[in-house]
Amino acid sequence: MVAATMMMSMLGSRAAVLLNRSAIAMTQIHRRHLSSLTTEASGIQRVCVVGAGTLGAQVAVQTALRGFEVSVLDVSQESLDRCQQAHRAIAKQYVTRDASQASQARGWRGLSSPGVPAAKVASDALDRLSYTTSFEEALRACDLVSENVPEVPDIKAATYASLHEHAPKGTIFTTNSSTLLPSQFAKDTGRPHQFCALHFANGIWDANIGEVMPHPGTSEETVRTVLRFAKEIGMVPFHVRKEQNGYLINTLLVPWLNAALTLAQRGVSVPADVDRAWLISTGGCNAPSGSVLGPFQTMDIIGLTTVAHVMDYWGDQLGDAQMIANGKFVRDRYLEKGKLGITNGNPREDAAEGFYSYPNPPFLRDNFLD
Amino acid sequence: MVAATMMMSMLGSRAAVLLNRSAIAMTQIHRRHLSSLTTEASGIQRVCVVGAGTLGAQVAVQTALRGFEVSVLDVSQESLDRCQQAHRAIAKQYVTRDASQASQARGWRGLSSPGVPAAKVASDALDRLSYTTSFEEALRACDLVSENVPEVPDIKAATYASLHEHAPKGTIFTTNSSTLLPSQFAKDTGRPHQFCALHFANGIWDANIGEVMPHPGTSEETVRTVLRFAKEIGMVPFHVRKEQNGYLINTLLVPWLNAALTLAQRGVSVPADVDRAWLISTGGCNAPSGSVLGPFQTMDIIGLTTVAHVMDYWGDQLGDAQMIANGKFVRDRYLEKGKLGITNGNPREDAAEGFYSYPNPPFLRDNFLD
Repeated sequence: MVAATMMMSMLGSRAAVLLNRSAIAMTQIHRRHLSSLTTEASGIQRVCVVGAGTLGAQVAVQTALRGFEVSVLDVSQESLDRCQQAHRAIAKQYVTRDASQASQARGWRGLSSPGVPAAKVASDALDRLSYTTSFEEALRACDLVSENVPEVPDIKAATYASLHEHAPKGTIFTTNSSTLLPSQFAKDTGRPHQFCALHFANGIWDANIGEVMPHPGTSEETVRTVLRFAKEIGMVPFHVRKEQNGYLINTLLVPWLNAALTLAQRGVSVPADVDRAWLISTGGCNAPSGSVLGPFQTMDIIGLTTVAHVMDYWGDQLGDAQMIANGKFVRDRYLEKGKLGITNGNPREDAAEGFYSYPNPPFLRDNFLD
Repeated sequence: MVAATMMMSMLGSRAAVLLNRSAIAMTQIHRRHLSSLTTEASGIQRVCVVGAGTLGAQVAVQTALRGFEVSVLDVSQESLDRCQQAHRAIAKQYVTRDASQASQARGWRGLSSPGVPAAKVASDALDRLSYTTSFEEALRACDLVSENVPEVPDIKAATYASLHEHAPKGTIFTTNSSTLLPSQFAKDTGRPHQFCALHFANGIWDANIGEVMPHPGTSEETVRTVLRFAKEIGMVPFHVRKEQNGYLINTLLVPWLNAALTLAQRGVSVPADVDRAWLISTGGCNAPSGSVLGPFQTMDIIGLTTVAHVMDYWGDQLGDAQMIANGKFVRDRYLEKGKLGITNGNPREDAAEGFYSYPNPPFLRDNFLD
């Protein structure tokens, strides 16, 4: 499922600043800099993106922008042609948005500089992309595959069988499936220990999360390599430690969207009122602080005693065993250790404990989201 | 339950600008201005707040700041004393925050002006507050009661019986209960048609929503009067059209918080990662646009075809009949009428239909949250 900011964050439009020093050296320096942020480089150089639809096209161009050689593989030449057109449009968007730091995508930051003009970064990325209907050609010397084919189990299974037949032994396979689990296809890959999910959100350069989720048979080395690779292509890597539906974001988004729909479906309220009430009470556009909070920040402010009580109460009302387990989790792991959140304090000054440690919790640091 | 911004929005601290023209006349003008925003004035003048705890104290001082006479009623003199101390601290906070438009609470905007210095507004508000343990005294000539006593059914029932005994016939009763439903106490009030919920979020001047929820026996006139009154005391009034647990905000918040806790409780992720993933993909602190979105805005951007599909899929996976009903709701009411959301467009330019109508949906207007 797509991330919410995709559209809103593409509204800016400014002319590109074009400068004229050698881009290649700077790109190399940039790659080294990114790698140094992880403990080690992934070692990935050549990537194959299978499935040239919306998400596949985004993964391919993002990976090429970050300096990797990318072959796009699809059974349909028409899809490949549309994908190539999309890549040109995205490259143009990159140049346009680069002119302003404010409108530049998080996943595109730092790619160009006075020494590496945006137009050069974009044209180099397009040069690193190739398009083919041949598995053999696409997978030659390929280090990592990102699978983006339709969410149909039979299509996925057949695709993995063909990929396994043509890919080098050491190639890592990743799936970008939103709804199907890696374990469903582990056997079809012929290399279950070299297979896990690397899941992106639509508009991957803005909502630049890379959710890395193993199935029970994935090797730790594979998880580490894919986490490093995700970082190298400009994603913030997240290790989803246990296989489950929804990764992180959809696990949070779906119940929230569902609750909103229920209010409208039952005639309790209307869409604009639901949105306004949410925005007003959770730090929306007009909030004095301009802050937006994640759920655990929110709970530390609510106070963990109240949170535990709410989970107990609603768990009981709804007969929801997981909610009741969550209430117990908050009591056992936090309240009983004196971690109460910051109900009566200020996150910058209080020496409180909750899900975060105060003062100066990590979310007040500039690099929290990097 | 509290709203998330309370703490974050109290961080600012600036000296008050004190000026010296007559405050009384301006307060009257201000009251008239507020009233003209609704079709009619509520007619409420004297308010009794029952229960001097955290929320009761907030409701009392907010109501007094907005020009109403307020008596605070509690069975404990000690609670009343603490409440009075809290009121002095809040009045001081009002003066401090008034000095900066940026840090001023949404529910406090426009109370003072060059003609009405903040210190005068604050001291007038304190003068309008009285504190008593006597039902008779508190309810004399009272137009509206806000009940804020503990969430214990027996305490609520006994309180309503006493309130009914001492209040004038025409007095409207409102409950600020977060977890109990008005219909549970309608009979105890002795005036079910003059009784409904008026629910506030903690930090009511920042998260200034007033959720007005009738029970099946509440008169329409009562709902209208309470909606008007909510607006007059600086809240954005929301009509919750059917009685249900959670009003609007807790209906959205609880499943979202619960989903986050489930990720931690099951060891799928850790709190800071969950928050970072949410903030990155939904327009958090570092989003280029700085925008935050409500759930229906989010769904229009995701595209309603995808939303319907997701509800079908998860409803099926989880055996959740309400989710399946929500998928059907989106198809019947939106997709089948060609309302698809703005998947491929820009909310400022596209002539699309979804939950909102584009271009220029109401959420792009400055007054959307007022």
